[in-house]
Amino acid sequence: MDQIDSKILNLMHENARIPISEMSRLIAMSQPAVTERVRKLEEQGIITAYRAQLSPSKLGKNTTAFVLFKTGSCNDFAAFGEASPEIIDLYRISGEYNFLMKVVTETTQTLAAFLDSCNVYGFSTTLIVLSTAFEDKSLVIDQHS
Amino acid sequence: MDQIDSKILNLMHENARIPISEMSRLIAMSQPAVTERVRKLEEQGIITAYRAQLSPSKLGKNTTAFVLFKTGSCNDFAAFGEASPEIIDLYRISGEYNFLMKVVTETTQTLAAFLDSCNVYGFSTTLIVLSTAFEDKSLVIDQHS
Amino acid sequence: MDQIDSKILNLMHENARIPISEMSRLIAMSQPAVTERVRKLEEQGIITAYRAQLSPSKLGKNTTAFVLFKTGSCNDFAAFGEASPEIIDLYRISGEYNFLMKVVTETTQTLAAFLDSCNVYGFSTTLIVLSTAFEDKSLVIDQHS
Amino acid sequence: MDQIDSKILNLMHENARIPISEMSRLIAMSQPAVTERVRKLEEQGIITAYRAQLSPSKLGKNTTAFVLFKTGSCNDFAAFGEASPEIIDLYRISGEYNFLMKVVTETTQTLAAFLDSCNVYGFSTTLIVLSTAFEDKSLVIDQHS
Amino acid sequence: MDQIDSKILNLMHENARIPISEMSRLIAMSQPAVTERVRKLEEQGIITAYRAQLSPSKLGKNTTAFVLFKTGSCNDFAAFGEASPEIIDLYRISGEYNFLMKVVTETTQTLAAFLDSCNVYGFSTTLIVLSTAFEDKSLVIDQHS
Amino acid sequence: MDQIDSKILNLMHENARIPISEMSRLIAMSQPAVTERVRKLEEQGIITAYRAQLSPSKLGKNTTAFVLFKTGSCNDFAAFGEASPEIIDLYRISGEYNFLMKVVTETTQTLAAFLDSCNVYGFSTTLIVLSTAFEDKSLVIDQHS
Amino acid sequence: MDQIDSKILNLMHENARIPISEMSRLIAMSQPAVTERVRKLEEQGIITAYRAQLSPSKLGKNTTAFVLFKTGSCNDFAAFGEASPEIIDLYRISGEYNFLMKVVTETTQTLAAFLDSCNVYGFSTTLIVLSTAFEDKSLVIDQHS
Amino acid sequence: MDQIDSKILNLMHENARIPISEMSRLIAMSQPAVTERVRKLEEQGIITAYRAQLSPSKLGKNTTAFVLFKTGSCNDFAAFGEASPEIIDLYRISGEYNFLMKVVTETTQTLAAFLDSCNVYGFSTTLIVLSTAFEDKSLVIDQHS
Repeated sequence: MDQIDSKILNLMHENARIPISEMSRLIAMSQPAVTERVRKLEEQGIITAYRAQLSPSKLGKNTTAFVLFKTGSCNDFAAFGEASPEIIDLYRISGEYNFLMKVVTETTQTLAAFLDSCNVYGFSTTLIVLSTAFEDKSLVIDQHS
Repeated sequence: MDQIDSKILNLMHENARIPISEMSRLIAMSQPAVTERVRKLEEQGIITAYRAQLSPSKLGKNTTAFVLFKTGSCNDFAAFGEASPEIIDLYRISGEYNFLMKVVTETTQTLAAFLDSCNVYGFSTTLIVLSTAFEDKSLVIDQHS
Repeated sequence: MDQIDSKILNLMHENARIPISEMSRLIAMSQPAVTERVRKLEEQGIITAYRAQLSPSKLGKNTTAFVLFKTGSCNDFAAFGEASPEIIDLYRISGEYNFLMKVVTETTQTLAAFLDSCNVYGFSTTLIVLSTAFEDKSLVIDQHS
Repeated sequence: MDQIDSKILNLMHENARIPISEMSRLIAMSQPAVTERVRKLEEQGIITAYRAQLSPSKLGKNTTAFVLFKTGSCNDFAAFGEASPEIIDLYRISGEYNFLMKVVTETTQTLAAFLDSCNVYGFSTTLIVLSTAFEDKSLVIDQHS
Repeated sequence: MDQIDSKILNLMHENARIPISEMSRLIAMSQPAVTERVRKLEEQGIITAYRAQLSPSKLGKNTTAFVLFKTGSCNDFAAFGEASPEIIDLYRISGEYNFLMKVVTETTQTLAAFLDSCNVYGFSTTLIVLSTAFEDKSLVIDQHS
Repeated sequence: MDQIDSKILNLMHENARIPISEMSRLIAMSQPAVTERVRKLEEQGIITAYRAQLSPSKLGKNTTAFVLFKTGSCNDFAAFGEASPEIIDLYRISGEYNFLMKVVTETTQTLAAFLDSCNVYGFSTTLIVLSTAFEDKSLVIDQHS
Repeated sequence: MDQIDSKILNLMHENARIPISEMSRLIAMSQPAVTERVRKLEEQGIITAYRAQLSPSKLGKNTTAFVLFKTGSCNDFAAFGEASPEIIDLYRISGEYNFLMKVVTETTQTLAAFLDSCNVYGFSTTLIVLSTAFEDKSLVIDQHS
Repeated sequence: MDQIDSKILNLMHENARIPISEMSRLIAMSQPAVTERVRKLEEQGIITAYRAQLSPSKLGKNTTAFVLFKTGSCNDFAAFGEASPEIIDLYRISGEYNFLMKVVTETTQTLAAFLDSCNVYGFSTTLIVLSTAFEDKSLVIDQHS
């Protein structure tokens, strides 16, 4: 992976819908060469997906929380997590808890109702997001900038 | 927001680079109408960005951790976070700690070095990600499926 | 809501039994106008109740505690709370515990007996009130003062 | 204190603005006798205040939290608490923390800003109120009901 | 209770077997008067017992620990405590745990065996005494000294 | 140490002022022999003191607490403890805290004032004694009973 | 144990396969005398074993963790520990947890699977080793150096 | 690494001073071949050392503890650890604390003195080893047994 790949990854991290033609112009490389490089970055598994990011609050979901969860039934809880639309991310972690999950709900009342539904699996500690400083910083440092 | 908007959001959450023509076919709506709807979803702030998602491990970053941070200098720490390439996400949270951050580093040794650099701001609790059950589930439930 | 409403709310927060005539004099407004404003503040749900506040110690209740409670049966515990005269306030909260409650009992021994009665629902952490710095500060800042 | 006093206290806890005439009718006692009893309950310090209760959300204050606070400067913090309009109640408590306070703010962002202003005094743990089961239950059990 | 009572209490706290004759001499009061005062201090319940204090290590008990205990069966655990020779003191306490007990055993291995026997009642946190700064300071300040 | 020594220790643990003549009768041994055995138990350091035990509440001290203390200045804190009449027992312990102390004060307010005076040395966690199940159980099991 | 014994213990702690002839030369003592001293150190139980130490990472085991474990079935868990190849060391400890164990696994995923297998016995807190500062320092201070 | 290597590693983990001749006999392979295999296991870094293991209690060190340590000066503390004979193992760890160390001292009093010497670097939580279930289990599963 060279500086051109880094540049491509950062452009696509900034705007995944950027046209090949614009990347071609920005990095001064022919369109077929850019296309080929993108294909290779996908093939190598460096790019795993392209995602539209949505605003929770614009979708009526005003409460975001991180929930630490301690359970004796890790597989059952992972299956529950998969099926729960409130849980956006689910990680197995070290420490006192087995899981960390990001939960998005409409209000603090619906968050409480969601937490009730988790009770059969174990105990939770809920950390409400008061504000987001930043999210989704690029993993690749752009050596041009 | 109706079922067609939901469908569009899910298609673009699944693959942000999906061509308008393919969406047009999948939801049986003319291309100009699809383009117009996407433009409105962007304009309303429902779609906030399109991002290529990158594999940390393919980029040589094998350790992911969530770090809870307690500081008496919240503004200074937020500025430090902005400038630290290891910190991908940074949230202000309720509970015992002021901040939760997602940190991606090459090894557990580089994670330790990063944590040393945080020491001047306060105290941390580090939760290593042992495995990722899932990430980035769509905020929109697809009523067709 | 204007400055006159703020003044009325603060007067009635200070002394809910204040006669309309006295408010009329204090804010230099006719009695029917004051009455009308109070009616509207009630109607809008800004004023939710008028309460006589009682001294626990004068009623023989010398121990006040806040109890954090962790339960797997939130609905059952809420019903228990409703029926328990010792529990004055009951909140669903974020963090490690589901509930925070204010408990008033005669002695530390009767507090212990009350906590025993909670044991079937889960685990508690009890914080004894050593002294009250202040309580029931007005939610409305009086712009005249 | 007898059953009639209990009845009076509960009536005035339910509605502090209840007219003496209505209490007289409800407890079948002459108005001068009721007035005299109320006066004595005030004089003995059993009734400490009459308060209009206000709805935080109707006043634009949508976030209520209980904050546990650990400080090495208890007197300074108590003075700070007295001067902070966000802090409604402030208690000195046993346990790991010195203080428990009830905090009412407009949003989670203004709560975070308030918590920043506390940082010079020590460390906090913030418990967001997700919902209120009940508040201000009467300290007096009505033996008639 | 006057200064002479304080003096008597401190003398008997220092050495419970002190002869009346020696106290008589030390506080310059007749023996019958001293005897009468001691009798009254016992009668009023100010003196609750006279105890020989024994050295745990000289009795082959080399490990002293304070154990915090969390149980859902407070009465059962109190009965267990009463019957356990290892538990010297047992207190019901506020905080996260129900009980604090002082435990004296021969070795850390026998302490572990004792803790195993508690397991059916709940969970414990064990604080080993590394050294004793002092014990049994008198509750009465001697105004003569 | 034989069964007779055990019997003597338990009699003197029960009542340190028991006359030699009564012990002589109860264990069927001559008074000089009992006296000699007591002398040896003292000489060997098995008996370390005889203490009158006083009732805190009868002395106007209504609040008993165990305080866990974390300090970076252990020697300074031990000296402070020695000089503080509120601290009856002081132990150096394992775990998260350096010290455990038993504190006896008049009220919860004076306890709070005492805790303020500790603040310069570090941080405390206070466990209020709600009730005492038992105290000062004998270290010696009486094989006769 | 004298300085020569200390020297022998340090030489064998450094390299347990050191030949007697080399020790003889290094400490200027005849080979039979060295052999006799080693025999005595073994006989007295001062030397308990000679162990080849293996590199976990060279054996494909890249994750080392210390796991604190809280169980109500200490004997069952100790037997489970004995039979689990992932657990290298197992200690009964004071504090909130019953056990501390050193666990070596291939990856963080296999660590998670191992932790799942512990779930039937109780709850764990996992501390991942980020780096090893040093291990197996000698218990004997070499007075020559 | 094959089954013969595993067998050699286990034999030398069991007894690092085993003569080549005995290994030769036990695994039915010529002495030069065994010698060559041992040399390769050393060369590859699979065997990192041969150590005599010493009994702490036989060396007068009766207290073993694991100490969790939280510091803002990780490098300074690591240097302190290197120089402290009481610290046998020192690990950088994830979680709330930066370090875990194994500490061996003569008594609980000397442990307390050692902990005092750590105070300038930060805060500790001390877990006393009550008993050792097992230590130094082989990392290699012997497929013959």
